[in-house]
Amino acid sequence: MKIKVGISNRHVHLNNDDYKALFGDIPLTKRNDLTQPGMYACNETVTIKGEKRSYDNVRVLGPLRSYTQVEVSKTDAYYLGVNPPVRNSGDLDGAYPITIIGPRGEITRNAAIIATRHIHVDKNIRREHNLEGIEKVSVKIFGEKSGIIDNVYLKDSDEAYFEMHLDTDDGNAFLLKQNDEAEIIK
Amino acid sequence: MKIKVGISNRHVHLNNDDYKALFGDIPLTKRNDLTQPGMYACNETVTIKGEKRSYDNVRVLGPLRSYTQVEVSKTDAYYLGVNPPVRNSGDLDGAYPITIIGPRGEITRNAAIIATRHIHVDKNIRREHNLEGIEKVSVKIFGEKSGIIDNVYLKDSDEAYFEMHLDTDDGNAFLLKQNDEAEIIK
Repeated sequence: MKIKVGISNRHVHLNNDDYKALFGDIPLTKRNDLTQPGMYACNETVTIKGEKRSYDNVRVLGPLRSYTQVEVSKTDAYYLGVNPPVRNSGDLDGAYPITIIGPRGEITRNAAIIATRHIHVDKNIRREHNLEGIEKVSVKIFGEKSGIIDNVYLKDSDEAYFEMHLDTDDGNAFLLKQNDEAEIIK
Repeated sequence: MKIKVGISNRHVHLNNDDYKALFGDIPLTKRNDLTQPGMYACNETVTIKGEKRSYDNVRVLGPLRSYTQVEVSKTDAYYLGVNPPVRNSGDLDGAYPITIIGPRGEITRNAAIIATRHIHVDKNIRREHNLEGIEKVSVKIFGEKSGIIDNVYLKDSDEAYFEMHLDTDDGNAFLLKQNDEAEIIK
């Protein structure tokens, strides 16, 4: 079964308290909608700082969540000097310490992860595509540097856009671009 | 069949004339041997410059060759602002223009490629491992972000060390480290 590809660059999710510590009392502002319903990229950016180096202009994604999380690739991790585990979004067990710097303050949190390869689904998508009861799949990637990626987790939400999200390491290793098509193998 | 993994960071091969244009009349000097017999990393480094940005301290590999070639990953390519094709080493058909800056001069050459995934072999290795007459293979990668990579070319030399070379995008996408083991699937 075909699946659309989305590539996620490094980005930050913030909880309410951490957002206030970084940006003060001004509200988060939407820059553009993302493909997942209700999700958006914000005008607000932060600097993320590891033990060796930092990246400026890292995008905050909205809306605010119940947890603060910094998603980076392994390439980013080597550059920053952090050693984050591979985790599903929201699972911060063993997440690596990282400093986040905003215009009004800075915080250090156990928040850095490498996000698992994942596919956004909801109940309807699972039913339509015969994916009920399935935790993860493998996905065939086409093109000049083709192959198969394993451990692609199905990520449920109330309303999802059926799309696979990969980080820039997976995207670049396979020469993938936004909206390319891949194929789910169960 | 098991195969050892080597990860290649961005690097430069130079021909004699280009070496002289960059470094003058002083000889190339060895820093350390590489795993392939006769190949070595040099003390000499250059800056490579694309249309957007540059990288300093890019290692020159020895000995000098009959062609000048700059090997980068797709991640590097986006950063530099170059659009190199995927090519076997030495095949510079369509290689992307890039500027190389040394202590004594600078040159611009159609030299930038993304190296194909490849395995170093020689006649004995091909015979021992039943790889005679084979152009390319697929390779199974183990670990938390496992999968299979296709189009891994067998690269012949007179005397080879049996090893698979991947760029940092493939290495980081699959969380591979130097000397990890993978498995050849024909």
